[in-house]
Amino acid sequence: MPKKSLKIIKIGGNIINDDVLLHNFIKDFAQIDGAKILVHGGGKRATEISESMGVDAKMIEGRRVTDESTLEIVTMVYAGLLNKKIVAQLQELNCLALGLSGADVNSIQAHKRIVETIDYGFVGDIDAVNSEAINVFLAHEMTPVFCAISHDKKGQLLNTNADTIAAEVAIAMSGIYEVELNFVFELKGVLSSFTDKNSVIPFINFEQYEQLMQDGVIADGMLPKMHNCFNALKRGVSSVKIGDQSMIANGTMGTKLRLI
Amino acid sequence: MPKKSLKIIKIGGNIINDDVLLHNFIKDFAQIDGAKILVHGGGKRATEISESMGVDAKMIEGRRVTDESTLEIVTMVYAGLLNKKIVAQLQELNCLALGLSGADVNSIQAHKRIVETIDYGFVGDIDAVNSEAINVFLAHEMTPVFCAISHDKKGQLLNTNADTIAAEVAIAMSGIYEVELNFVFELKGVLSSFTDKNSVIPFINFEQYEQLMQDGVIADGMLPKMHNCFNALKRGVSSVKIGDQSMIANGTMGTKLRLI
Repeated sequence: MPKKSLKIIKIGGNIINDDVLLHNFIKDFAQIDGAKILVHGGGKRATEISESMGVDAKMIEGRRVTDESTLEIVTMVYAGLLNKKIVAQLQELNCLALGLSGADVNSIQAHKRIVETIDYGFVGDIDAVNSEAINVFLAHEMTPVFCAISHDKKGQLLNTNADTIAAEVAIAMSGIYEVELNFVFELKGVLSSFTDKNSVIPFINFEQYEQLMQDGVIADGMLPKMHNCFNALKRGVSSVKIGDQSMIANGTMGTKLRLI
Repeated sequence: MPKKSLKIIKIGGNIINDDVLLHNFIKDFAQIDGAKILVHGGGKRATEISESMGVDAKMIEGRRVTDESTLEIVTMVYAGLLNKKIVAQLQELNCLALGLSGADVNSIQAHKRIVETIDYGFVGDIDAVNSEAINVFLAHEMTPVFCAISHDKKGQLLNTNADTIAAEVAIAMSGIYEVELNFVFELKGVLSSFTDKNSVIPFINFEQYEQLMQDGVIADGMLPKMHNCFNALKRGVSSVKIGDQSMIANGTMGTKLRLI
């Protein structure tokens, strides 16, 4: 029997930060047939709330560090405010959404990132995804909505990259489902030229990916994103695409990643 | 076939506000055998965070009003911070906790309280509990952990009394389970004398409850709590008790409420 299909969509700050964009995305997402999972990043609300509480973003060598106050704020904003706002909007559209952090049903177990040169604080690197529990939800037509918080199963919550959560959930679920993973961000796809928003590269295979990194076309924030994409493909995810929300709304292509 | 038993425990601010008490309670709760649900109130953290954000509690005639800023804060604190903290601690003890707001799987649908003399703002009065979805979780040995947020299924989250959530969830689940509902608060039970913390009334039936209200023994904050208790009993909940955390830890009696 062929595996059932599962669509996993990850959305980032550009959609989260804009109420109109978010609501439009949610309408498109709710219309996707069959099993689906949403993973959302944080957006600027956490920073705004930090500032209003007088908690300064702690940076070391230009990298954000999650100290105790920051962890408290991201837990409130990601798992509370944003997650429940998204879930409530999905319910209006008869999508039986279920908001989850990685602590819920031990869905995403991680460990605190090991200190090498920088102590990132309460940041989690993922060890295991509870695909069995997630499958219970999907089998009952519930739609998991993950925020970017994991835990260490010792009582500690951990701030975790949302792209990595999407990739690891996709990998874990690919044992049961034919998984299609979509990263939705502000651009139409991977661009061959930074200055031309329409220069989308339609397909990238692993060899081309390595070349594009060497050439500096894939750089900065795209590096970890693309790493997550190829990691997912290598570990069993059927399809990985990256592009803007029109991928979900109209099925526009974005950039499709392939191993070969 | 007799119904399976389900224990529902509601905890309030006195436990939530104290990390040691909370962790001790969580240890006792995790050890309860069989199907169980935790419902938690808010506590003072929401007020502290409001203050640090410069949002003043809005009061009309001595009653707290949930305006938009307050709703945002209680959603963050109840559904985010407190709920995930409790869930993470339960996971450490191998209790497969699942944090829920009423928006998740449309578990608690409400409407915004109708304005009569006072507009309470974004406060929800409960219309329906999705017992079927909650039963899916229980049947898979998951432990729902509810915060005191509901929604109106039109995209609006609503602040909702935690005692009422506990009572309504208990009533809805009593169609499937033999439900034992326990309200844990700061006192050992309903007291016959305000000044004697040990003057616990062991049993109160409906007739006695009406008499105790007339006599002013049940007054103030105890009025809505006792209303929730008897409402639950009248609508099918098998057992309702009220007392401090030693009810859960050592099985001390507290006050047991009965219809007759």
